[in-house]
Amino acid sequence: MGSIEALSSAPEPKPVIKVVALCGSLRKASNNLGLIRAAMELMKVEEMEMEIEYIEISTLPMLNTDLLIGYGVFPPVVEDFRRKILEADCFLFASPEYNYSVTAPLKNALDWASCPPTNVWADKAAAIVSASGSLGGARGQYHLRQIGVYLDLHIINKPELFLNGFDEPAKFDSNGDLIDPEAKQKLKQLLLALRAFTLRLRNNS
Amino acid sequence: MGSIEALSSAPEPKPVIKVVALCGSLRKASNNLGLIRAAMELMKVEEMEMEIEYIEISTLPMLNTDLLIGYGVFPPVVEDFRRKILEADCFLFASPEYNYSVTAPLKNALDWASCPPTNVWADKAAAIVSASGSLGGARGQYHLRQIGVYLDLHIINKPELFLNGFDEPAKFDSNGDLIDPEAKQKLKQLLLALRAFTLRLRNNS
Amino acid sequence: MGSIEALSSAPEPKPVIKVVALCGSLRKASNNLGLIRAAMELMKVEEMEMEIEYIEISTLPMLNTDLLIGYGVFPPVVEDFRRKILEADCFLFASPEYNYSVTAPLKNALDWASCPPTNVWADKAAAIVSASGSLGGARGQYHLRQIGVYLDLHIINKPELFLNGFDEPAKFDSNGDLIDPEAKQKLKQLLLALRAFTLRLRNNS
Amino acid sequence: MGSIEALSSAPEPKPVIKVVALCGSLRKASNNLGLIRAAMELMKVEEMEMEIEYIEISTLPMLNTDLLIGYGVFPPVVEDFRRKILEADCFLFASPEYNYSVTAPLKNALDWASCPPTNVWADKAAAIVSASGSLGGARGQYHLRQIGVYLDLHIINKPELFLNGFDEPAKFDSNGDLIDPEAKQKLKQLLLALRAFTLRLRNNS
Repeated sequence: MGSIEALSSAPEPKPVIKVVALCGSLRKASNNLGLIRAAMELMKVEEMEMEIEYIEISTLPMLNTDLLIGYGVFPPVVEDFRRKILEADCFLFASPEYNYSVTAPLKNALDWASCPPTNVWADKAAAIVSASGSLGGARGQYHLRQIGVYLDLHIINKPELFLNGFDEPAKFDSNGDLIDPEAKQKLKQLLLALRAFTLRLRNNS
Repeated sequence: MGSIEALSSAPEPKPVIKVVALCGSLRKASNNLGLIRAAMELMKVEEMEMEIEYIEISTLPMLNTDLLIGYGVFPPVVEDFRRKILEADCFLFASPEYNYSVTAPLKNALDWASCPPTNVWADKAAAIVSASGSLGGARGQYHLRQIGVYLDLHIINKPELFLNGFDEPAKFDSNGDLIDPEAKQKLKQLLLALRAFTLRLRNNS
Repeated sequence: MGSIEALSSAPEPKPVIKVVALCGSLRKASNNLGLIRAAMELMKVEEMEMEIEYIEISTLPMLNTDLLIGYGVFPPVVEDFRRKILEADCFLFASPEYNYSVTAPLKNALDWASCPPTNVWADKAAAIVSASGSLGGARGQYHLRQIGVYLDLHIINKPELFLNGFDEPAKFDSNGDLIDPEAKQKLKQLLLALRAFTLRLRNNS
Repeated sequence: MGSIEALSSAPEPKPVIKVVALCGSLRKASNNLGLIRAAMELMKVEEMEMEIEYIEISTLPMLNTDLLIGYGVFPPVVEDFRRKILEADCFLFASPEYNYSVTAPLKNALDWASCPPTNVWADKAAAIVSASGSLGGARGQYHLRQIGVYLDLHIINKPELFLNGFDEPAKFDSNGDLIDPEAKQKLKQLLLALRAFTLRLRNNS
């Protein structure tokens, strides 16, 4: 009985948020992939009450609805991808900027998961991080935000994270690992904001 | 005493959402102003649990921070405007498209209310409607959405409302009054979505 | 000698402009591919002084610079594609809108041809056409225009061509062939504007 | 006679390009106004074959077509502004970013000069410079580029100039004067590119 009492007086555990992370670059040593690894590292060392699953998108075929066997019948690799997106609570996009927009692999993944009969992104929170040259990927992020309107994603407004991968001193090592303490701190703030917005939307949906 | 009992067992009234509506056109017979009037009419005939206050923006001076007497000390007309924005629960922007973007008067109003020390738009829901030529104001709406990222507005994703004011049969009369039943129905759906998102964000903020 | 005289007094033939056309959709019955076929048909029946080569982009691998054997050494299919882009005088993009932006296959093609050491798009004229739902692909076109800034494309401002493939009466048949006379006329005007801008830029570069 | 001969054998003077410069900020000590002054200084010390006229836009009334006396009959201050735009060869926009877009005064000026019956911006070259926080005004520049599509401006693609006014060491003094030699050099390159593109378009229009 005492144990039940103890149990009932214990603080309710905070819910764990399931984050699915996607990377717009297919390069092994991508700084953007490094941002996702850094986010996953933060989960281990901080009490974030989030878990991040990184999902590889390089195996998805280029979207062509002629590939569908029937209405809503997708190739198996696409089905798997869509199910994981559907089961996520929210999303972390690590989105490098290629030619002032998002990359083709990321756009391809976004498009597959939006196909009828079910846009599996719908009504979930998301956050964007990017590492790129000059403006740190900002131009691509605003394109992704416009895409998110149709996908019905709720992308957090603040903080925004744009990292210039070429700045000195280097923010990333040659493997793409994030080594800049200030950037790690910003990344943590962004993840906490994503968590807060996810809960805020969920508790009353 | 019986009346009190009756009162206490009555269903709790739904909260009334205070919407502030702004129009990007200064023309008297603007179709966009007509959209705001149509939204206000809906409040009278439907159980929307919202109230809409239209705020005139033509009296705001063109933004020039040299006009400030001191830090955060605005001209009186700007102070009044900022206070009304601060007190609103959410926003309805009727935003015509001029040259593929928002109008200057609307941008001016958006900018004044974002000035330090307090961005009074912050963390509130908003919806956009527009009547314009060709694409019905869509290009301006996506610019407004990007502006909303910095303002920290939570602009609803769906439904979107773009009305082509030149289509036949006419959607507006020569006074700018909305006369198209289908458009009125879409406007109602948009207002209900704004209400729902406002409550969803508020109940857990 | 008389023949030489006749030759020299003959009107100088207008230069033939080499247009490379790309389609953002991989579907066989794509309306956007239909727009390219319609443009090619116009070359046969009108004195346009242009030739259009349609280049298939579905065979390009998803861009991943890890695929490069060495700096500037591309997979053969990419090399072929880049050479054709380099040899073109100007470009016609048939760009459907997926989720309010360009498609992944088109973005992939754009990115491959921009890779160092040579952005092979640079300093050439281009035009965009699109067939899509609702706004006829406009949102994707403005993303493509921003991409074009980095690619250093000179995209013509006017006319713009947005076709709603779902409007009644149908503008396309079930094979994706353009059957609307008014749309064909607009397409012709757009091609003439592309030709004029290409010549204008070229004659003094 | 000898002098005539000398004259005729002298190199033909290069044409002088008339640039009209507009500033999106109304502040006296605006860094963006400082960029225009820096551009005008360059005209004096370098052989640029350009002349820059800065036009004040703060006196323009907020656009409201109800202000027109008749079709195409503008208030005198607007008429004057429109005539100067019409007479320019090309444009230099110093465009700060307010809330991720262009400022209201600049949008107002752009809109007035585009009004029927004549869009007086049409078919001319332009360049954009900006000084702002964080991304140096980039987000506003891309909005201005989209506006430029409707205005039928030919905005040069390269180089782009984004200056972060808050970076250390300071690029501007407290009067808004540009004091950074590297930025001055970039500004000169941008002006030369504007000159070249203006001539390229003009010689064959």
